[in-house]
Amino acid sequence: MKNFNINEDPHRRFNPLINEWVLVSPHRSKRPWQGQKEVLSTEDLPKYDPTCYLCPGNVRANGVNNPDYKNSFVFENDFAAMKQEEIMFEEEIKHTFFKAEPERGISRVVCFSPRHDLTLPEMDIEAIETIIKTWQKEYTELGSIKYINHVQIFENKGSVMGCSNPHPHGQIWAQSSLPTQVEKTQNSLKSYYDKNKTTLLEDYLKAELKVGSRIVIENNHFAALVPFWAIWPYETMIISKRAVNKITDFTAEEVNAYAKILKQLTIKYDNLFSTSFPYSSGIHQSPTDGLEHPEWHFHMHFYPPLLRSATVKKFMVGYEMLGESQRDITPEKSAEVLRELPETHYKDEVR
Amino acid sequence: MKNFNINEDPHRRFNPLINEWVLVSPHRSKRPWQGQKEVLSTEDLPKYDPTCYLCPGNVRANGVNNPDYKNSFVFENDFAAMKQEEIMFEEEIKHTFFKAEPERGISRVVCFSPRHDLTLPEMDIEAIETIIKTWQKEYTELGSIKYINHVQIFENKGSVMGCSNPHPHGQIWAQSSLPTQVEKTQNSLKSYYDKNKTTLLEDYLKAELKVGSRIVIENNHFAALVPFWAIWPYETMIISKRAVNKITDFTAEEVNAYAKILKQLTIKYDNLFSTSFPYSSGIHQSPTDGLEHPEWHFHMHFYPPLLRSATVKKFMVGYEMLGESQRDITPEKSAEVLRELPETHYKDEVR
Ligand SMILES: O=P(O)(O)O[C@H]1O[C@H](CO)[C@@H](O)[C@H](O)[C@H]1O
Ligand SMILES: O=P(O)(O)O[C@H]1O[C@H](CO)[C@@H](O)[C@H](O)[C@H]1O
Repeated sequence: MKNFNINEDPHRRFNPLINEWVLVSPHRSKRPWQGQKEVLSTEDLPKYDPTCYLCPGNVRANGVNNPDYKNSFVFENDFAAMKQEEIMFEEEIKHTFFKAEPERGISRVVCFSPRHDLTLPEMDIEAIETIIKTWQKEYTELGSIKYINHVQIFENKGSVMGCSNPHPHGQIWAQSSLPTQVEKTQNSLKSYYDKNKTTLLEDYLKAELKVGSRIVIENNHFAALVPFWAIWPYETMIISKRAVNKITDFTAEEVNAYAKILKQLTIKYDNLFSTSFPYSSGIHQSPTDGLEHPEWHFHMHFYPPLLRSATVKKFMVGYEMLGESQRDITPEKSAEVLRELPETHYKDEVR
Repeated sequence: MKNFNINEDPHRRFNPLINEWVLVSPHRSKRPWQGQKEVLSTEDLPKYDPTCYLCPGNVRANGVNNPDYKNSFVFENDFAAMKQEEIMFEEEIKHTFFKAEPERGISRVVCFSPRHDLTLPEMDIEAIETIIKTWQKEYTELGSIKYINHVQIFENKGSVMGCSNPHPHGQIWAQSSLPTQVEKTQNSLKSYYDKNKTTLLEDYLKAELKVGSRIVIENNHFAALVPFWAIWPYETMIISKRAVNKITDFTAEEVNAYAKILKQLTIKYDNLFSTSFPYSSGIHQSPTDGLEHPEWHFHMHFYPPLLRSATVKKFMVGYEMLGESQRDITPEKSAEVLRELPETHYKDEVR
């Protein structure tokens, strides 16, 4: 009988953050692809687009003009998924099968730059620091609202990730409840912390730095790695070395190191297929429920869909929706590919 | 303060099958869409395509010729995600952070028809019954293999769902472990059954039939409904009225009723946007681990991505990946729309 070789044989890996498995099929990456290809927008974007509702000075859906902003700019989402209004709620709806409850929340849009064409990897460190400071400010401001218990900071980048405007921007959805994925993560973090008195991610990062094979970038305060249990082909996580609860706990030096690793990671992503690399990213950190959360450890997830090229993505469909997530390339291989990519943006190479 | 109105106000609903919530934003369906549109293939498919590796007589990737099959046809996937080989496994890999184990399995492809252009809604009832009988045969055959404990029958339909060949076909992935989603479902079904001595879905279906507003189609033996906790815009579930464990428990009359509801539901789907409607579908039923599973109740999920038209889909991205699933149209509204659609296929209308 053949001995198990994790680089070659089909296997499952366990994600201790959400207690779920992923099916890994290393041998399957040679599968030919005749299916859907993504449409690439190859046009160069202008620095300012008069029809863009995020560019400075332009008019938005609600008729208001954007200010002539100089770095980042935040406004309430004109088509928010939640409302701020308080709703009266009678308990009767808590039926076994028909359990529902009103949800209050605030959705904001964060423009990263006045420039229509400038994404994270092409911005300078100072501008990225300004975005991080904006996230800190929003986390504090939204988190201090009494009924807001969770602040989700995220970005959908690229049309393949449902982003409808290429002007670089992210979003913040702040709400009363802990969203499902955050609640699962919190449960795992908490039971680990209660048992070990260290955070799960502190110990995980130490173990990863020791092994080394899944590390993509490391600096004094952060590491970017492909998690052992990654589901997307080039999924990564940025983890702070210090076990801090939330983005507002970072020192000025840490903010700078975070800006640097964000830039380096997104440059590598763009370089992978010489394209503006699509992904959804987002920060997981302590809820704003007013309780102590020593179990929480700041981290940022990147979920990019591309698999083989700028136009061929991984489809999380039938088996993945009904069974479990499945991947074709090992996390170690992905990390190696990302690690070996240059740290200069491909556009700067040709310039 | 305003009273909670589930048809108008943002709220969360609970899915008791997998213990997860979904965020519902009824007011958000009026949001304009400037984002990605899917590419529609408008060409009429031929009945036979000499370049298709699924058509009768043609040669496959492994060099073998398909037989001249007359109804459905099953073969081993040439690029399977799992292998049948037994792998020796030493326990050391069960690290807290690096937990992995080899997985054995078999992947098969099920061609639904020799006709390259004939999808479920356009097939006659007899041909659909033949597919159901093929699923029964495969469930029995694969399930009886000693190391196979779960048989996942599913279909990815349409290029937007990662399907790389329009020739109507589904897949079967049979394996040693219970996949994540199935395990979650089994846990919920089991704790309900242990408490109530009826299956969760038996009681749920009764409650839904009483309310009526989420039922799309009903016949003597099955109902198709939009679950109260649906995440995809037009997600549905086919549930058997009798609490049967698995597909092989159906009587001839039930197989006929199942074929009928499959045809009716997929006709409605095609009629919704006058297009060959994409989805991933799959059957959840008892594992084949040799144990008694009175908690399991046969059901089939349909997860279709389209939201507004044949080219605009719902993106499950940033907030959804990091936080929780979110929908813009209520399940009741979706059910109403589907219910009111004609039961004659739009192509037959114009013929
Ligand atoms: O097996 P296929 O049809 O080539 O592949 C398709 O279905 C599989 C099972 O859902 C997925 O893992 C693939 O990402 C998808 O493209
Ligand atoms: O808010 P946007 O950018 O219009 O919309 C995008 O992000 C949202 C949050 O992840 C999703 O719910 C939408 O499906 C997606 O298109």
